[in-house]
Amino acid sequence: MSKMSNKKIILLNGPNLNLLGTREKLLYGHETLGTIVTELKAYASKKGIKLLTFQSNVEGELINFIHENSNASGMIINAGAYSHTSIAIRDAIVATGLKTIEVHMTNIYAREIFRYESMIAPVSSGQVIGFGKLSYFLALDAMCSLINPQAQ
Amino acid sequence: MSKMSNKKIILLNGPNLNLLGTREKLLYGHETLGTIVTELKAYASKKGIKLLTFQSNVEGELINFIHENSNASGMIINAGAYSHTSIAIRDAIVATGLKTIEVHMTNIYAREIFRYESMIAPVSSGQVIGFGKLSYFLALDAMCSLINPQAQ
Amino acid sequence: MSKMSNKKIILLNGPNLNLLGTREKLLYGHETLGTIVTELKAYASKKGIKLLTFQSNVEGELINFIHENSNASGMIINAGAYSHTSIAIRDAIVATGLKTIEVHMTNIYAREIFRYESMIAPVSSGQVIGFGKLSYFLALDAMCSLINPQAQ
Amino acid sequence: MSKMSNKKIILLNGPNLNLLGTREKLLYGHETLGTIVTELKAYASKKGIKLLTFQSNVEGELINFIHENSNASGMIINAGAYSHTSIAIRDAIVATGLKTIEVHMTNIYAREIFRYESMIAPVSSGQVIGFGKLSYFLALDAMCSLINPQAQ
Amino acid sequence: MSKMSNKKIILLNGPNLNLLGTREKLLYGHETLGTIVTELKAYASKKGIKLLTFQSNVEGELINFIHENSNASGMIINAGAYSHTSIAIRDAIVATGLKTIEVHMTNIYAREIFRYESMIAPVSSGQVIGFGKLSYFLALDAMCSLINPQAQ
Amino acid sequence: MSKMSNKKIILLNGPNLNLLGTREKLLYGHETLGTIVTELKAYASKKGIKLLTFQSNVEGELINFIHENSNASGMIINAGAYSHTSIAIRDAIVATGLKTIEVHMTNIYAREIFRYESMIAPVSSGQVIGFGKLSYFLALDAMCSLINPQAQ
Amino acid sequence: MSKMSNKKIILLNGPNLNLLGTREKLLYGHETLGTIVTELKAYASKKGIKLLTFQSNVEGELINFIHENSNASGMIINAGAYSHTSIAIRDAIVATGLKTIEVHMTNIYAREIFRYESMIAPVSSGQVIGFGKLSYFLALDAMCSLINPQAQ
Amino acid sequence: MSKMSNKKIILLNGPNLNLLGTREKLLYGHETLGTIVTELKAYASKKGIKLLTFQSNVEGELINFIHENSNASGMIINAGAYSHTSIAIRDAIVATGLKTIEVHMTNIYAREIFRYESMIAPVSSGQVIGFGKLSYFLALDAMCSLINPQAQ
Amino acid sequence: MSKMSNKKIILLNGPNLNLLGTREKLLYGHETLGTIVTELKAYASKKGIKLLTFQSNVEGELINFIHENSNASGMIINAGAYSHTSIAIRDAIVATGLKTIEVHMTNIYAREIFRYESMIAPVSSGQVIGFGKLSYFLALDAMCSLINPQAQ
Amino acid sequence: MSKMSNKKIILLNGPNLNLLGTREKLLYGHETLGTIVTELKAYASKKGIKLLTFQSNVEGELINFIHENSNASGMIINAGAYSHTSIAIRDAIVATGLKTIEVHMTNIYAREIFRYESMIAPVSSGQVIGFGKLSYFLALDAMCSLINPQAQ
Amino acid sequence: MSKMSNKKIILLNGPNLNLLGTREKLLYGHETLGTIVTELKAYASKKGIKLLTFQSNVEGELINFIHENSNASGMIINAGAYSHTSIAIRDAIVATGLKTIEVHMTNIYAREIFRYESMIAPVSSGQVIGFGKLSYFLALDAMCSLINPQAQ
Amino acid sequence: MSKMSNKKIILLNGPNLNLLGTREKLLYGHETLGTIVTELKAYASKKGIKLLTFQSNVEGELINFIHENSNASGMIINAGAYSHTSIAIRDAIVATGLKTIEVHMTNIYAREIFRYESMIAPVSSGQVIGFGKLSYFLALDAMCSLINPQAQ
Repeated sequence: MSKMSNKKIILLNGPNLNLLGTREKLLYGHETLGTIVTELKAYASKKGIKLLTFQSNVEGELINFIHENSNASGMIINAGAYSHTSIAIRDAIVATGLKTIEVHMTNIYAREIFRYESMIAPVSSGQVIGFGKLSYFLALDAMCSLINPQAQ
Repeated sequence: MSKMSNKKIILLNGPNLNLLGTREKLLYGHETLGTIVTELKAYASKKGIKLLTFQSNVEGELINFIHENSNASGMIINAGAYSHTSIAIRDAIVATGLKTIEVHMTNIYAREIFRYESMIAPVSSGQVIGFGKLSYFLALDAMCSLINPQAQ
Repeated sequence: MSKMSNKKIILLNGPNLNLLGTREKLLYGHETLGTIVTELKAYASKKGIKLLTFQSNVEGELINFIHENSNASGMIINAGAYSHTSIAIRDAIVATGLKTIEVHMTNIYAREIFRYESMIAPVSSGQVIGFGKLSYFLALDAMCSLINPQAQ
Repeated sequence: MSKMSNKKIILLNGPNLNLLGTREKLLYGHETLGTIVTELKAYASKKGIKLLTFQSNVEGELINFIHENSNASGMIINAGAYSHTSIAIRDAIVATGLKTIEVHMTNIYAREIFRYESMIAPVSSGQVIGFGKLSYFLALDAMCSLINPQAQ
Repeated sequence: MSKMSNKKIILLNGPNLNLLGTREKLLYGHETLGTIVTELKAYASKKGIKLLTFQSNVEGELINFIHENSNASGMIINAGAYSHTSIAIRDAIVATGLKTIEVHMTNIYAREIFRYESMIAPVSSGQVIGFGKLSYFLALDAMCSLINPQAQ
Repeated sequence: MSKMSNKKIILLNGPNLNLLGTREKLLYGHETLGTIVTELKAYASKKGIKLLTFQSNVEGELINFIHENSNASGMIINAGAYSHTSIAIRDAIVATGLKTIEVHMTNIYAREIFRYESMIAPVSSGQVIGFGKLSYFLALDAMCSLINPQAQ
Repeated sequence: MSKMSNKKIILLNGPNLNLLGTREKLLYGHETLGTIVTELKAYASKKGIKLLTFQSNVEGELINFIHENSNASGMIINAGAYSHTSIAIRDAIVATGLKTIEVHMTNIYAREIFRYESMIAPVSSGQVIGFGKLSYFLALDAMCSLINPQAQ
Repeated sequence: MSKMSNKKIILLNGPNLNLLGTREKLLYGHETLGTIVTELKAYASKKGIKLLTFQSNVEGELINFIHENSNASGMIINAGAYSHTSIAIRDAIVATGLKTIEVHMTNIYAREIFRYESMIAPVSSGQVIGFGKLSYFLALDAMCSLINPQAQ
Repeated sequence: MSKMSNKKIILLNGPNLNLLGTREKLLYGHETLGTIVTELKAYASKKGIKLLTFQSNVEGELINFIHENSNASGMIINAGAYSHTSIAIRDAIVATGLKTIEVHMTNIYAREIFRYESMIAPVSSGQVIGFGKLSYFLALDAMCSLINPQAQ
Repeated sequence: MSKMSNKKIILLNGPNLNLLGTREKLLYGHETLGTIVTELKAYASKKGIKLLTFQSNVEGELINFIHENSNASGMIINAGAYSHTSIAIRDAIVATGLKTIEVHMTNIYAREIFRYESMIAPVSSGQVIGFGKLSYFLALDAMCSLINPQAQ
Repeated sequence: MSKMSNKKIILLNGPNLNLLGTREKLLYGHETLGTIVTELKAYASKKGIKLLTFQSNVEGELINFIHENSNASGMIINAGAYSHTSIAIRDAIVATGLKTIEVHMTNIYAREIFRYESMIAPVSSGQVIGFGKLSYFLALDAMCSLINPQAQ
Repeated sequence: MSKMSNKKIILLNGPNLNLLGTREKLLYGHETLGTIVTELKAYASKKGIKLLTFQSNVEGELINFIHENSNASGMIINAGAYSHTSIAIRDAIVATGLKTIEVHMTNIYAREIFRYESMIAPVSSGQVIGFGKLSYFLALDAMCSLINPQAQ
């Protein structure tokens, strides 16, 4: 874990995820993004990881944040609706070479057909989909393993 | 109308609609967005409605505005080009639960094929399409009826 | 309005719309087509418009009616199911050159995928979709504006 | 059977089925529609069912007949070519709420590809396809069971 | 030609062709359907052919006419918009076994994409397309040759 | 019926049909496959038919059974999910030349789109779809008629 | 006809049409291309038309011939298989501005699906399809009418 | 954890996963399925879960195993190639009502296009994809959370 | 040939090929699979090859056999209907790294459209298609050349 | 073999195959087309076959050669890129009735998607694909068997 | 060149192009966007052109910049990933009427299929694609020619 | 430039480009291909490049020319209509390994949809599209840079 302690992971949340816990609670749960992020940071801290988080509804700002943190050890991203349309975010992942895990809180395959395709999936290491806020925790576990395989 | 007087409706205009009246006058008419908005606000005021308006070329800023005004009684939106590509705006409509009417000044079905599909249409209450600036007025009439059905 | 007083507008209703108010009330409302038409005629009369109405379940009879009234100033049409399949009605609109507004009571974009395409939309001036019987009134407003732009 | 005796079932035959027995005998058999209908009425009568039949080559007349007999207990329909194109007949079935069984004399899946899709199938209770005139008899058996499940 | 003299050919015109000569003259010419039919009958008469003609905007009435004249030696049909959608007319041609020539006045391949496919073409002997009223005369020539090959 | 008495018909049930009556009772009814098969055998016996039945979740075992009973007079098959994917079962039907009737308990056209296509339908004599357990009885009636046409 | 006498029409035949009369006689008839061309030239001559003919199996040679005869009054072309694939011949027609009639001896819509689309049809004046060698004669009639409308 | 101790979870591995650790080590890692399963059982045991595992290359045997263990609290499934084609396994999941998590060791979205669609995804609770053997451990964590939400 | 003598090649035959020589003789010839296999073994033996053969109608059993014989020098496979649907067999070929030649007795490109795509073709070395039983002998010749290139 | 001695087989090679052995040696091998043809002629000669060969980059010249040798007993063709686009070569095969075997040196199914479809395959007897120059020898073996079945 | 001296051209670079020279150097070269822009400005200056440049990862900011500089003589745009998805930028080009040249540094047709379609191409004057930083210089040459045709 | 002086570049022009300057002048300009080629040769000569040019309407002759000049340093090609259909020219480029730049005089993306796909683009270094004759000059500039990167 000592090795881990100087590692930074970034967590990005895309459009509408700032509404978590205030709307569509049946689908997305009752906790706000703030609460979830706080819990995730604590969880990361225990693993010796510094978790830097960002949410934006603007596609380009998400890209800016990725660029500015291209020195991170990895990225966990729930790009929301942009997952299905953003070649630009995909290019940012490839351009920075950031090890990426895609997260969705809901099972996107049980929703509208246009949510089936993710532009990000082919350039990410893996996906954790459908487990509500737990999806983020599992993705964090997976990221630790990816960036520090011996530790596990 | 007394009931109406404390109701707020938001009017969103998407990319390139700030150019109204200065370019492509044949297609979109000679009046600027400013003029149309002023007329609409006066018309709304007579109906006891407070009309809050916003235009942006940035998809995410439109979403931000929707979030910030999720307490409105309804939304009239001409999302311009984003109508055909933005799952994120669609999600914002569903997430906030805002009663929505989609508006287009031109008949999108008489233009390029990629303008046929609207991501917003399936989550809106209805559409008013093709009547130039009149489209906004009719949409306002419709919205009043939707939020105050007995009054009509 | 004096100018308007000698203008005729035709209102066509296609297949199954004769059942309005007797079936699927949740979707289409409780008023019969007869009641709606009566209200519409009164509303048109106030605007100095003579509204001639026709309903048929037979595609060819709708076309016949369009032909016979090609001297009208405009047509409001809810072609029902034929909206999605009838090239023949589309051709009748083009052949007669009738200024046309398409109307649907329900939001066709929130229903089956085969209701997304309208054969009539590309040859009409505009569409009013999803507002129940109000759709007809708004279409009538729009038609008056189209045929007498200065008056508004 | 006493319960059944006051029940009416309608049998609709669509375009070109009036030619039965006079043309394409190899494909459709040697009996005329008249003969088959007579046999079916006798068979229905034994089950205490009043069978009301109608054939038309006009899509709208088939819809009219459905509307006029929306009080029937069920409908058996061989819509012929209209099966594959008529949203209007489909809407009539949904609008009247008539319990419907779709019938085809030939195996439509062993013919042209455009006969594979039936607009009626999704809104019917079931299909009997491919057994010549026997298809009608089996559909009648099925309909009796559907409208009087205890009896069987 | 003596052989020909007791032969009947039917000429069918589908939806909107009754407007010939009164509308869209640039596309369809200045002569009415009545004038063209009169000329065609005279031309047929010289060839010893009795030409029976029918126009309807109702798909089912066209089918009825085909059925009632299934004893004709051949059929020339301009099914207009129904060419592209009517499986029922196609079935009527196959069911009656009528030797059929498809005619279009305009070049349907230089118009909208949905006019490219004809349901009738695969079950007809041939097509004459794009020559205005001359299309009918050429089709009549072709039909004479088809039903009396030795004569030519 | 004397002729019938030495005829064997096979009844095949594909994947998950062994769960009948224990799961998804709303969709498939409360009776187990065992009960239905017993009733069917009794019904067949009255008609002088020996009904041999088989259920398997293994595609290849269904094929094996078809091969082993290629001397049967006919086959009634509810191939369940394999109906939509199995070219191998289709080939087995063609290879053995078994007269085949396809059965489904539910209306597959009112379910997911991937259930619309049946690989078996084009090589079967007919289909009985959507009537619950009654589908099997009607298919048995139809099969008797197919293999002994004079008897009916 | 005097006007006509100095007019040149070219007749192009594409790949495999040189085999006419020697192979696939059931489909294409017993007469060789030579015989048909001789008859056509005589027929043209009577109309005061000089008919220049060319056959090649090489796409580029057909284009060369079109270029070399761009001063002709019109072109009748049976491009055979190249009809369905050759953008280059289509471009040659547009580039030279030659008035063009497309001919096929067989009904291409009753054959393989890839013969349904013609690259030439959208840039030709019309088509004559399915009448064997008669197709050429009718096309010649049509061409005379196109280039000398008053004469007819 | 006491509550958990009497809970059974099943782990299914589909075709070719028995080759793990012996072939394609670069893609799938160096450990055999046996080793991974042993580790998983130990991990599950610590959580008070009984993990029952099964591997088969036969689609129907996987279905049989699902049926036989429909009393389990949940299922983790890596259906391998059958993920993309098996409606039958999908139906088994729906029929038994088993809470299901889909697992893939490799990122299927970075491979052939036919691996993009999973028939199982829409009927599962969630997916863990792309983390090698870790995918199974994360899925087990997720399953524990799903079946005992309070515990976490 | 001495080098060859210790080489094993496996021959797999998929669903319905056990019926060879007993059914559809026109399409597949009069010899049984047993006879063909015997001839092939003799032919292989002369080349110093041990030919191990297997036929099954069960997709998973074919995969099992491939796994169990992954030490073979090559595989000749006629996967029958599974050729067109089995990703699982394709994966088995890739996973074991077996040099594979695909065989079909009939010309699959002259049959139904769904036989055009082979899942196995892209991962095989080559295909021999359409020559009846000779296809197997040619494939054996090709395999010998592939595994012992110098010998030829 | 005596029977064979007066039989002629033609071998056609399409575009770019003249570059064999000089370019892309990894993919196509080191031998020139000349060398391969010489070997093939010797091999054919031993079988009592006269092998006439032709290579051209011009589609129409390949067709000309087929026409000029329509009296051959069979044709082996590697049409290269024209395999995927040439309806004209396909028509030449059908028109001459030449027994045809399609050959490819590389496995076209392991290359670009547009190489998957062959226009020639459906009208050929069979295909030998993917074995480099050996493909030609195997095709020659197959052709001998096709034209002299008793001999083998 | 004197004429040119008061002309302004704008150069837009879209998402991720700010990373030029720091990442993916193999694909995009070693020079930063800053360096390239400096060189381009110098090159433009020599031609008497004022080059105004802008880069943003935000789609809407690119649109804003286009609006604000609609008085420019022309625009050179490398819209990066937005080239393939942005109807809004396309609309901005049409609305402002800016003469536009599309640039890509890499050959987009040698990359993923979703990069094949450019929304901008149909509304631009031309494209320069695939020459690294040289693409910009060539585009500048082309733009000078477009806005001052006589000068060249 | 001394290095350049012994370099040969070939310029190919495909079908219908020989008509430049004589037809469709609005679209393609008033200069003939001869004039343009002369200017291009002079321009190349100044750069120390020998420009060898060829035009043909025959696809195979273009391929022949490519083969014969495979020793050139690069190729500039405007394949005209063959750009969109010719796999054979594409293969010739790959087979010879010629560095290739694709040129079009018109903006192919502002024309018919079938001109959107170029078979040549994926195997070329880059494209210059839409600048009339200037396209050739820019391509020549680009080619010089490609074959002599240090020089620029």
